[in-house]
Amino acid sequence: MNPVLVNRWRGNAIESRHRGSVAVVEASGRVIAAMGDVQRAVFPRSAIKFLQAIPFVESGAIDAFGLDDRHVALACASHNGEPIHVGLAQDWLERIECGHDDLECGATLPMHQATQFELMSEGRGPQRIHHNCSGKHLGFLSTCKHRGEQTGNYRLYNHSAQQRWFEVLESVSNTRVAQLPWGYDGCAIPTLAIPLQRIALAMARFGDVSRFTGERRTAVERIHAAVTSNPYMVAGKERLCTALMERLAPHILVKVGADGVYTAVIPEHGLGIALKIDDGNDAAARVALGAVLQSLGLLPSDEIKVLGEYLRPSVTNSRGEIIGRVEPSSDWESLNA
Amino acid sequence: MNPVLVNRWRGNAIESRHRGSVAVVEASGRVIAAMGDVQRAVFPRSAIKFLQAIPFVESGAIDAFGLDDRHVALACASHNGEPIHVGLAQDWLERIECGHDDLECGATLPMHQATQFELMSEGRGPQRIHHNCSGKHLGFLSTCKHRGEQTGNYRLYNHSAQQRWFEVLESVSNTRVAQLPWGYDGCAIPTLAIPLQRIALAMARFGDVSRFTGERRTAVERIHAAVTSNPYMVAGKERLCTALMERLAPHILVKVGADGVYTAVIPEHGLGIALKIDDGNDAAARVALGAVLQSLGLLPSDEIKVLGEYLRPSVTNSRGEIIGRVEPSSDWESLNA
Repeated sequence: MNPVLVNRWRGNAIESRHRGSVAVVEASGRVIAAMGDVQRAVFPRSAIKFLQAIPFVESGAIDAFGLDDRHVALACASHNGEPIHVGLAQDWLERIECGHDDLECGATLPMHQATQFELMSEGRGPQRIHHNCSGKHLGFLSTCKHRGEQTGNYRLYNHSAQQRWFEVLESVSNTRVAQLPWGYDGCAIPTLAIPLQRIALAMARFGDVSRFTGERRTAVERIHAAVTSNPYMVAGKERLCTALMERLAPHILVKVGADGVYTAVIPEHGLGIALKIDDGNDAAARVALGAVLQSLGLLPSDEIKVLGEYLRPSVTNSRGEIIGRVEPSSDWESLNA
Repeated sequence: MNPVLVNRWRGNAIESRHRGSVAVVEASGRVIAAMGDVQRAVFPRSAIKFLQAIPFVESGAIDAFGLDDRHVALACASHNGEPIHVGLAQDWLERIECGHDDLECGATLPMHQATQFELMSEGRGPQRIHHNCSGKHLGFLSTCKHRGEQTGNYRLYNHSAQQRWFEVLESVSNTRVAQLPWGYDGCAIPTLAIPLQRIALAMARFGDVSRFTGERRTAVERIHAAVTSNPYMVAGKERLCTALMERLAPHILVKVGADGVYTAVIPEHGLGIALKIDDGNDAAARVALGAVLQSLGLLPSDEIKVLGEYLRPSVTNSRGEIIGRVEPSSDWESLNA
């Protein structure tokens, strides 16, 4: 039974409760802090995009197609679909001589609501390129094209585009992918259910560049640099990943996953963090991430204040009046090894 | 610790879990079935709008302003803000000679997404009349105007508009409102935290018209008739309350509340039902409502099929492919007294 990590207060009573689990792990595998069942398999969803980008960066496609660090950051993104993201995706699609139909994610409206409304008011609709994962898909496409592979159905489990990141995941998480439960993600590629502790381990190892050699080391270093120097490309306006990395990168790398997941990497301390809200609530996941970073002494209290709209959000009514708050439960005192 | 009521599956693994509680109560107060902690106070939010409409219907404002059953149903609604709802609200506002600023809910876009997008594409924005609670607010305004009371600040805890439904609630739920925790709702009126079992009791008593006498009995009968004959006005397109009542009213009356709440009334069996998903997930609340109705033998399996998009929803990816499902947990076997 996982503990309540986050409470949503309305007036003077708790309205909703969010249970979940947190794992903080060293690259050696040592668990330095945990709450809840960290052996339970969870779908990391987009929270392992840094790892999924490794085969793309290793492949040499970047130089072959004249791409740069912004494209690498977009490959790691769950982006808002703002003009800056969609424009870069369009540029990328043209560089690899592909069309929108070559992208195998579905057509969506941009994730960012104001951008969505702007499109609607212009009479425009869903497009594949708007999908928050379009950069990741462009990474798969670019790798296949550069390697001379068939690109059709690159989204499917058995395609080399997916098998390549499965191999990366196995090597950093000490798992056997063939033994993991799995399903398809919202963007139509496979997502694997992985014990939370192993996800945190993978992130710790990704953070410790010295563990890698050769082209993989170069690729991991490049992803670190690209993400930390282009945090806006990784998410966008009003997004915790961007706000946190704009303030604290390269000390912290952070990545959201759908349905209440976050991962974080603390390279200087050799730590990987993974958390999952049992019920999938994304606002609660943001609050929980803030609480774990604060518990570990990684987030000064003035940062908690600056990032308050994400980490200690108010509940407001339709008149804009503050009527409640979302905050970490008192169980955070028990975050320990 | 409340049990898991609903699981969200992705592929061959559970991705998210939703805990909660359910109370099924007779008007006598006897609990005939329960899951989880039914003594815990929960905010019913909009799920007690049938009760909140009683003082309006009792007041005589309906005849005084030339209103009819559609207006009564709108007073009980969490409506979509479709043209049919907003048009009736505008008609009502004019009948009571009030303007948009007299409504004390905040301005919002319509709840129904396609309607929202249509407004955006016409360059129109949020309005108070679009608020899903605008009918309830019109009920408060009409009652105050008809009684010759000051209408300003009718939304506040101590205003007679609120005190009147507090009195109704006390009489049907066996609670003392002054002792209940409370907060402000999204539409800016008070919402009271009430033990779940007492919410179910209130709904059972509301369902048993024979318990009432005089004007209150006439009002309760009128609300039953208005809601069951105008289910579209109570919610709208793609909404479980409307779909369920279009098929099963007057055998079942049902009302959603924000943050994972449902109430239902089964007049023929003298039952009131209340449920709350701990984490506030609305999709899980719909699935849980279906499961409790089915467990009680109130929902034939062909109805479960017809209402499947609400009661057994698929999870789809951005390509429209089915990749998972949301369904009742196996704990439903334990629904009993």
